[in-house]
Amino acid sequence: MNPLLAGRDLLDLETLGRPEMEALLDTAATFGEVLRRDVKKVPTLRGKSVVTLFFENSTRTRTSFEAAGKYMSADVINISGSASSASKGESLRDTFLTLQALTADLVVMRTPYSGACHQAADWVGVPVVNAGDGTHEHPTQGLLDALTIREAKGSIEGLNVAIVGDVAHSRVARSNVWGLTKLGANVRLVGPRTLLPADAERLPATCHTDLREGLDGVDVVMVLRLQLERMDRALFPTPREYCNLYGVGTKALAAAKADAIVLHPGPMNRGLEISGDVPDLPRSLMERQVTNGVAVRMATLYLLLGAEG
Amino acid sequence: MNPLLAGRDLLDLETLGRPEMEALLDTAATFGEVLRRDVKKVPTLRGKSVVTLFFENSTRTRTSFEAAGKYMSADVINISGSASSASKGESLRDTFLTLQALTADLVVMRTPYSGACHQAADWVGVPVVNAGDGTHEHPTQGLLDALTIREAKGSIEGLNVAIVGDVAHSRVARSNVWGLTKLGANVRLVGPRTLLPADAERLPATCHTDLREGLDGVDVVMVLRLQLERMDRALFPTPREYCNLYGVGTKALAAAKADAIVLHPGPMNRGLEISGDVPDLPRSLMERQVTNGVAVRMATLYLLLGAEG
Amino acid sequence: MNPLLAGRDLLDLETLGRPEMEALLDTAATFGEVLRRDVKKVPTLRGKSVVTLFFENSTRTRTSFEAAGKYMSADVINISGSASSASKGESLRDTFLTLQALTADLVVMRTPYSGACHQAADWVGVPVVNAGDGTHEHPTQGLLDALTIREAKGSIEGLNVAIVGDVAHSRVARSNVWGLTKLGANVRLVGPRTLLPADAERLPATCHTDLREGLDGVDVVMVLRLQLERMDRALFPTPREYCNLYGVGTKALAAAKADAIVLHPGPMNRGLEISGDVPDLPRSLMERQVTNGVAVRMATLYLLLGAEG
Repeated sequence: MNPLLAGRDLLDLETLGRPEMEALLDTAATFGEVLRRDVKKVPTLRGKSVVTLFFENSTRTRTSFEAAGKYMSADVINISGSASSASKGESLRDTFLTLQALTADLVVMRTPYSGACHQAADWVGVPVVNAGDGTHEHPTQGLLDALTIREAKGSIEGLNVAIVGDVAHSRVARSNVWGLTKLGANVRLVGPRTLLPADAERLPATCHTDLREGLDGVDVVMVLRLQLERMDRALFPTPREYCNLYGVGTKALAAAKADAIVLHPGPMNRGLEISGDVPDLPRSLMERQVTNGVAVRMATLYLLLGAEG
Repeated sequence: MNPLLAGRDLLDLETLGRPEMEALLDTAATFGEVLRRDVKKVPTLRGKSVVTLFFENSTRTRTSFEAAGKYMSADVINISGSASSASKGESLRDTFLTLQALTADLVVMRTPYSGACHQAADWVGVPVVNAGDGTHEHPTQGLLDALTIREAKGSIEGLNVAIVGDVAHSRVARSNVWGLTKLGANVRLVGPRTLLPADAERLPATCHTDLREGLDGVDVVMVLRLQLERMDRALFPTPREYCNLYGVGTKALAAAKADAIVLHPGPMNRGLEISGDVPDLPRSLMERQVTNGVAVRMATLYLLLGAEG
Repeated sequence: MNPLLAGRDLLDLETLGRPEMEALLDTAATFGEVLRRDVKKVPTLRGKSVVTLFFENSTRTRTSFEAAGKYMSADVINISGSASSASKGESLRDTFLTLQALTADLVVMRTPYSGACHQAADWVGVPVVNAGDGTHEHPTQGLLDALTIREAKGSIEGLNVAIVGDVAHSRVARSNVWGLTKLGANVRLVGPRTLLPADAERLPATCHTDLREGLDGVDVVMVLRLQLERMDRALFPTPREYCNLYGVGTKALAAAKADAIVLHPGPMNRGLEISGDVPDLPRSLMERQVTNGVAVRMATLYLLLGAEG
């Protein structure tokens, strides 16, 4: 049993310590081997119950946590926002007290409200995992990106990483900025000024409004999804214009290192923030990211629940 | 194996015998211990399949049955009303014949139609559990309330219980009236005349339209949810008015016994039928109710499926 | 291990070989015995994960696959279309690449797009099972019908089978035409000209617009659901008119053999395509179809995943 994270929450990478982050990555790498086995099942979390509480739609994140829990023999119970008591006027605090009383051992929450996971974690004694809260953080995504980069490059120390696109609305970007810099990377945020974060100077990253300059000599290009559903105002003229200036295609990638890798948290809008052909290049590791996501979530559930090896 | 309930349905507390009710409570108390274990898993229902068929939204009830089934190693399959064949014009009878043919061993149903569970139980041979049918009954809620009261007070015999609020629309109230009186309690129904049941004289309970009088000297205050979604006409002037006259706060509770306990089936509208602070008092046992709900549902599945110890 | 189907897809019965079809039916018959056991659970698929991806609502098919997977100890993860990444603009190819990367071992898909399952199967290495694609095919339904007929009649060879109703929109009809003729039956398609398939001459079946003539001397009457939701134009005057001319009641059945059996894929519109009393006759095997559906899906998962006995 690794006591570093037992009984704790996973809410953000901004305040998570580097030793904790490395414990999660190392454990995830071990679970990666379980995923390659013919029988993907270990009894580690037998008799533990994990509740996923998703107030926003998600295929990959919810499914990834569900698979992670089931592969470790936990009982996984899914609750979607529309079916939940919140729609009947129950407060979030009462929802969490109820889940705890329902004998949930850990709650995974996705919410449109930045900070709601931190609040929830204050209210209950069971570990809470942030699976994306508004435009704030998505720590397991940051961890799976870090794992994918570490696998591909050996180490994250000293790497140059460009995060391209709709940074302002991206919880993925925030988790990566904190996580990757903590592990020694230099991070650049690249996009039109309207999509760069208002509090950019607070982040340990440099800003670039020119794509070519932003990608110059980088080891990692992380393309963000253009979250059209999250933008209530016109933040750039047209999708076509965005694509021309900031879409990541083969030409833009030429500015990066020859062995630079490409990541995208998915789901992708091919032909918009990323060209149609780039995701199919060998340097594009989107599928590896997804698999590593399962491994990272296994590690998260395992360490937070303080399971015995 | 307790043969008292094996193969039977759990449809209401009005017609359920006292020995059956006590068998359910005693078995639930035993399962309560499983829930406190580090590994909440027993093999009791391995190879049995439980279908939950919910035509109304519910977090806590569906989740509670799902957890109960999984903790006993049953296979649990959830069907929600909107996804079901009923939306394609299939009759309820054909839906149940299909579930039975799908090799379900037990069906848990929530429905907006009072009496629909009884009908269903007539049509199929597998046990049917009523998880709430219209404004009729919600027997497992009645049982979990009885268990919570018995735990807190030692016995239900001779206790005075006030059920406060929207009694007319409450299946919870009906199940509690039948269940608690059968176990020896005296039950009072408290609320504005428009929210007291039209058939009140048929129920073994007294009616009170004055809150203070209704709570006078009681051992248990059960506050009902104001089910705004269930009222198609204005049955009281405004929520604020309701709250002033019938909202259960510290002042109203002063009329009850000093050691009176407070229950609420949830989800709560804090500040409406119950004041914001009351649920957080030590005398309020809402979280205990939720945990006992899992135990009661384990007992229900266990006894109806006639499982061997 | 039966190597005939290991690692392959189940997309249609038109191109599936007869030996494969018979392997599926024989294996399903064996699993039928597991379903009759008190403990319906075998460890066969422990550590395998099955994803159901349903872009159309379905109770019986999704539940049937879910039960089949769980009875064999697989981890089953359900994804419904509305919650999926497709609603965020992800391409179907990327959705499948993601599911594969999420370490799904097999994907079951229902889709409104004819041919989409074949496409998906081209994109990924894991087996894909078509659980209904548009108006094209629904192969496991064809197999469960074949199994039910074989059980009742001993053999399919030489039987006369009438498929009655909305053949044009029915993937069930198409799978049955291919499957049953491959196993030696003679198939007739019966319905108004507007509901007979435009490409009928391509199918190994004869067409009949007169119900009495179509049912004359047949061994099997398969009544199709009138899929009102699938018809965007008025293809017959009124439901009542349809019912008068093509509704299968006792009188129409008199034209069939005395021991003819009646099938319906469900959900049924009693009183429309089938009279209210026919489904309750001993010759009607709808419930047997449903149970055989679970057995056929167990066989499908088992053989495609190449499980060891």
